[in-house]
Amino acid sequence: MMILFNEDLVSRDEATIDIEDRGYQFGDGVYEVIRIYHGVFFELEAHLDRLERSASEIKIAFPFSREDLKANLEKLIEKEPVQSGHVYMQLTRGVAPRNHPFPEKADPVFVAYTKEYEKEPSRAPGRAVFTDDIRWLRCDIKSLNLLGNVLAKQFANDQNVEEAIFHRGEWITEGSSTNVFIVKNKTLYTHPANHLILNGITRRVVLSIAKDLGVKVKEEAFTKQDLLDSDEVFISSTTQEVRPIVVVDGVRISDGKEGEITASLHAKFAGRLS
Amino acid sequence: MMILFNEDLVSRDEATIDIEDRGYQFGDGVYEVIRIYHGVFFELEAHLDRLERSASEIKIAFPFSREDLKANLEKLIEKEPVQSGHVYMQLTRGVAPRNHPFPEKADPVFVAYTKEYEKEPSRAPGRAVFTDDIRWLRCDIKSLNLLGNVLAKQFANDQNVEEAIFHRGEWITEGSSTNVFIVKNKTLYTHPANHLILNGITRRVVLSIAKDLGVKVKEEAFTKQDLLDSDEVFISSTTQEVRPIVVVDGVRISDGKEGEITASLHAKFAGRLS
Repeated sequence: MMILFNEDLVSRDEATIDIEDRGYQFGDGVYEVIRIYHGVFFELEAHLDRLERSASEIKIAFPFSREDLKANLEKLIEKEPVQSGHVYMQLTRGVAPRNHPFPEKADPVFVAYTKEYEKEPSRAPGRAVFTDDIRWLRCDIKSLNLLGNVLAKQFANDQNVEEAIFHRGEWITEGSSTNVFIVKNKTLYTHPANHLILNGITRRVVLSIAKDLGVKVKEEAFTKQDLLDSDEVFISSTTQEVRPIVVVDGVRISDGKEGEITASLHAKFAGRLS
Repeated sequence: MMILFNEDLVSRDEATIDIEDRGYQFGDGVYEVIRIYHGVFFELEAHLDRLERSASEIKIAFPFSREDLKANLEKLIEKEPVQSGHVYMQLTRGVAPRNHPFPEKADPVFVAYTKEYEKEPSRAPGRAVFTDDIRWLRCDIKSLNLLGNVLAKQFANDQNVEEAIFHRGEWITEGSSTNVFIVKNKTLYTHPANHLILNGITRRVVLSIAKDLGVKVKEEAFTKQDLLDSDEVFISSTTQEVRPIVVVDGVRISDGKEGEITASLHAKFAGRLS
């Protein structure tokens, strides 16, 4: 398997990471996962915009021009073609003797590789549990500091459900690897894109589709109780797209089936991919 | 240079990290830095206790017995002797295809290497700045998710001071890589060892010395204003030991010199090392 390592295509085994890569010792880096449908990147520019923004927020100087990065990603999927899958990419601050402050001289390390899905990720109605949002207060940065997300996802796994939904106090923020939406009285609610959530690319697509469909949208925080009392709940992410959630903490949401607005968003979303 | 890679001594270049090591993609691991004085580990058992506890809190199964790990660390410093310096070690959950939940099968990856100090870390009176504590709520785990600490230390660096002191609201928690103490009316205060701070090994040594010296100790949170109004401020860490802080956010603490209790703790601490 070939991967993109900085600007070069190398075999996977050649791409070895130094023990003092700051990504390895501090989680000092940022990442993106870009979906590939029918061999083509979905929302490529939006993902690259966000990667550059994340890097900029933690003051990693982005080492490539947009054009060069896109050309390299194209080379990668030429070598490792993907029909339905994704490309994962990450950028760290680079290799330097271990010390907390930014090193005076270090070249960022970029890694990207593809994955073809053996089967399509399920979009079938799923279940979730609530979990305390104990993460840091810059969740808008898509950084490699993911332990809080990992522990939450494992918490969901341990209970045989698909997602853990974070709350700070009573307020829902997002899922462990998804954004969370509810529908109440035909209005779609999701947490505003501030420092407490990652502004998902799929979240933005959903909001844009909702507006196209004439669904009333409020980017406002809602509580756990609001969610349990809502008419529809769904999550969104690059890999899970739009997925209804019909049971949360063992409580059935509405009639326990995919809601009407979720279904129409889902259908319209699928329409954009073909 | 030889390093310890899992259970083997290998040359540094041989110890290459996989791009899908969970330490690299999620910061999914824990670490310790152990000081070496006169060629001997300082507080080895306490550090290894904490490493095991950190691993256990994030459910990484510790792959070695204590005796084997100690024997391997001894082999390491036999090969790479250190007079005054430290050993850095980290343990990650291992290599697995990228996915948030814990992999069903992955062997933890352990790396340890030594550093001889070119010069002794300064313990001269230093300065600090306040910074918002935006980190996650499990700071008691010494994990590789250190971006909040890195950004805070860089913030201090940018202002040419030695440390950034975190506060949640008005309450001081700790420094970006140190614990923080104040003395007021002959009483020593430091934040209790709960989920908001790392329970430093040097912090514990300082508290034990303070008790030996008959200094009244309160493990109680204090505010930014308490700190600015205090008689003495100091920080503690494995590498910085006991270091007075005499200016915070541009405000001189008391007379701007190392305080009396700080000096006696410092002297007694130094006595333990010879």
